[in-house]
Amino acid sequence: MSGRVPVLKIGDVLLVSIQVDLEDQMVIDLQDDLSERIVATGARGVVIDISALEIVDSFVGRMLATIAAISRVLGAETVVVGMRPAVAITLVELGLSLNGVRTAIDLEQGLGHLRRLHGRSTAGR
Amino acid sequence: MSGRVPVLKIGDVLLVSIQVDLEDQMVIDLQDDLSERIVATGARGVVIDISALEIVDSFVGRMLATIAAISRVLGAETVVVGMRPAVAITLVELGLSLNGVRTAIDLEQGLGHLRRLHGRSTAGR
Repeated sequence: MSGRVPVLKIGDVLLVSIQVDLEDQMVIDLQDDLSERIVATGARGVVIDISALEIVDSFVGRMLATIAAISRVLGAETVVVGMRPAVAITLVELGLSLNGVRTAIDLEQGLGHLRRLHGRSTAGR
Repeated sequence: MSGRVPVLKIGDVLLVSIQVDLEDQMVIDLQDDLSERIVATGARGVVIDISALEIVDSFVGRMLATIAAISRVLGAETVVVGMRPAVAITLVELGLSLNGVRTAIDLEQGLGHLRRLHGRSTAGR
């Protein structure tokens, strides 16, 4: 693999699908890539799919919160989608609340959420 | 990681982002998951993003062709998007032509292609 998480574009939403356990450098690269793409495309929303993740620990939780914070400064709202029930349970047990991170059941719900947030059609259906 | 590649849904298109070198079992799981999702959702299109792949060898090429063939039987067209220039060069040098596999530059072009193919709005914009 390339060691970089691809950032896909759908309308004015950027989509990131996290599928592997990210190491520090990959997280930094992802934050860089995503920030640049938000600025370059003028994206209004970011969807991060974590349906492949069986574990979300404090490291991943911090990454999601940081990405959401960076994106917000750049004018894009972040929605985390695809969280497994077991992951949600673990998060609560660990006392991780994903402050400032919006969530939705799946990609379509996440896109719908962003669409409503911006009061216009952003992407998807 | 979970060892499974997530299948995301956008409208009546399913999206698969390949980010890791897939082992045999992962390919079988992906074919299973994707087939089931096509049937369950009535999806008309499949987009496979390979922008994270630095190498597409005959194994990956066969997988893409097989997925496209299976999807077609189930009524969904497949478009492979995000191929890097170096990958295209290598494919040609290896004599791999990705028979029966449509390609597009990126996710949006791929969604647009599927939309035109079905003569109606399928997903994205």
